[in-house]
Amino acid sequence: MKLAIDGMGGDNAPKAVVEGVLLALDEFPNIEIQLYGNQRELQPLLKEHSRLQVIHCEEVVEAEDDPARAVRRKKDSSMARMLEAVNEGRADACLSAGNTGALMAGGLFKVGRIEGVSRPALATTLPTIDGKGFLMLDLGANADAKPENLVQYAIMGNIYAKKVRGIDNPRIGLLNIGTEEKKGNDLTKSVFGLLKEADLNFVGNVEARDLLDNVADVVVTDGFTGNMVLKTIEGTAGALMSMIKDVFMASGKTKIGALLVKGEMKGLKSKLDYSEHGGAALFGLQAPVVKAHGSSNARAIYNAIRQASIMVEHNVTDVIKTTIADNPVQQ
Amino acid sequence: MKLAIDGMGGDNAPKAVVEGVLLALDEFPNIEIQLYGNQRELQPLLKEHSRLQVIHCEEVVEAEDDPARAVRRKKDSSMARMLEAVNEGRADACLSAGNTGALMAGGLFKVGRIEGVSRPALATTLPTIDGKGFLMLDLGANADAKPENLVQYAIMGNIYAKKVRGIDNPRIGLLNIGTEEKKGNDLTKSVFGLLKEADLNFVGNVEARDLLDNVADVVVTDGFTGNMVLKTIEGTAGALMSMIKDVFMASGKTKIGALLVKGEMKGLKSKLDYSEHGGAALFGLQAPVVKAHGSSNARAIYNAIRQASIMVEHNVTDVIKTTIADNPVQQ
Repeated sequence: MKLAIDGMGGDNAPKAVVEGVLLALDEFPNIEIQLYGNQRELQPLLKEHSRLQVIHCEEVVEAEDDPARAVRRKKDSSMARMLEAVNEGRADACLSAGNTGALMAGGLFKVGRIEGVSRPALATTLPTIDGKGFLMLDLGANADAKPENLVQYAIMGNIYAKKVRGIDNPRIGLLNIGTEEKKGNDLTKSVFGLLKEADLNFVGNVEARDLLDNVADVVVTDGFTGNMVLKTIEGTAGALMSMIKDVFMASGKTKIGALLVKGEMKGLKSKLDYSEHGGAALFGLQAPVVKAHGSSNARAIYNAIRQASIMVEHNVTDVIKTTIADNPVQQ
Repeated sequence: MKLAIDGMGGDNAPKAVVEGVLLALDEFPNIEIQLYGNQRELQPLLKEHSRLQVIHCEEVVEAEDDPARAVRRKKDSSMARMLEAVNEGRADACLSAGNTGALMAGGLFKVGRIEGVSRPALATTLPTIDGKGFLMLDLGANADAKPENLVQYAIMGNIYAKKVRGIDNPRIGLLNIGTEEKKGNDLTKSVFGLLKEADLNFVGNVEARDLLDNVADVVVTDGFTGNMVLKTIEGTAGALMSMIKDVFMASGKTKIGALLVKGEMKGLKSKLDYSEHGGAALFGLQAPVVKAHGSSNARAIYNAIRQASIMVEHNVTDVIKTTIADNPVQQ
């Protein structure tokens, strides 16, 4: 399979991207990689590889670029050209750690929606305490969603959980402010009824406070709420970790304490490291478009490449296509 | 001033409530307390006090009772009778650690809205890393909100921050999924424009990941999002703390490490303990209705009583009344 990769996207690009690419090439003999980016910057980091092709682009979509315009205006950017490769069938999937909004807009514009999917969704696998993780979507592709959008998110999440995560009969949960059926806002109340009727293993409403306790394999929500919850988890975990660091650094005594728990603390951090499950993916497009975290290191890029390759290998896009065609949205 | 208190509400009632009441009576010479509840259960825990009156009620609103019906049906419950005391002017404010939904429904029904306030909001002070805290509302009084509701939340939060928290020119933030003006869903985009025009120190959008970094003194959001973010903070902090406990208990070596940081870890926990700032309060009712956390201990009840007394002392309700009258909602 052929994967197109944005060599210039992310805080640690191009170094981390190149290293991740080389790791993936070593590990997966069935992938060929097209690496888009500035050849002058990429070349010194690379080694010759029969399954690696570097395609020079002059421009880079920056983190602060306006998402709606970036890909259209910067026609010779690594992100735009990577998306084009997918659009023109020269690559089976693509991956960037760059500007999320630009990748979403560009994915929609250049790769295009699957027929019948009214709104694509951004999905990622978040960690749980038991290490199993769960898929959450939408994380912000659409701030305002209709009930039927969330049903499609559930259908697409279900397919991903089965095919990519290998879960037999994924438990589908609806993120809500209470577990009872009648709880929530107008949106979640409507979605609850629709999900009950759908051909899915719907386990009902799940509360935000229980998310990390592995209450569902796939959690659906609108993009505003999903983005909010994702950032709240990140912010709270970050704040707490920095406070614990202060605790450890408070005195000579606590520093010794810190040394004694160091190994186990590292284990905790890697448990919380959601890049182990890959990046975020745009569901509902004509080909897999994967977004690695902006701060991705080589390992995170490698994991996102693995994720993209599994999505291609298991024909996630085709299965979504046929399932959506068989389950047309009731308007 | 006279405060009506639900002696039977909360996981640790009546013991924690009685202890909190006795602490508050000792500390604040200007308050008189009416304690509502089952006299047979309350009496053994009490001591005689000139400013304490116990009013017997046969019924209790339970945590699992249906909110909409509980207060109406259980006419002789401690919660219903406490709310009645406020309604009939026999008390200046009331407080319960019981069923949140029932207290909100009962507050609306028995205490009543301030004229011009279309939707009351549930507000609480959440901790920040620097220990200062910020007020967030609405936390779930109304799952579906209109733009003008959020403007009223901002007005009420502003008054509370000034009067109760003693902040001169409170920074008002709008919870959103990005800091740029055009970010968000239909609701937040409309609210942004309205808050810019309002006579408030509006500091723009604030992101969930920065909430604990003291980016605003008052953060407004709709009740669905507020409840979601509150529970995500609780869930994430809880999950992380339990994981850190596992780290500390992993081996003999880590147990020694834990002992060495024990004092500082306690300090961290008390920093995160938002009951130090009091309970949640329903803003927009004819009198202060305070909701202490369901798991409140005596100290949390004491802090919630202090909060209620400050709200009465600084005429928060009257100031909200005149400010809302001066700023009628543009429909």
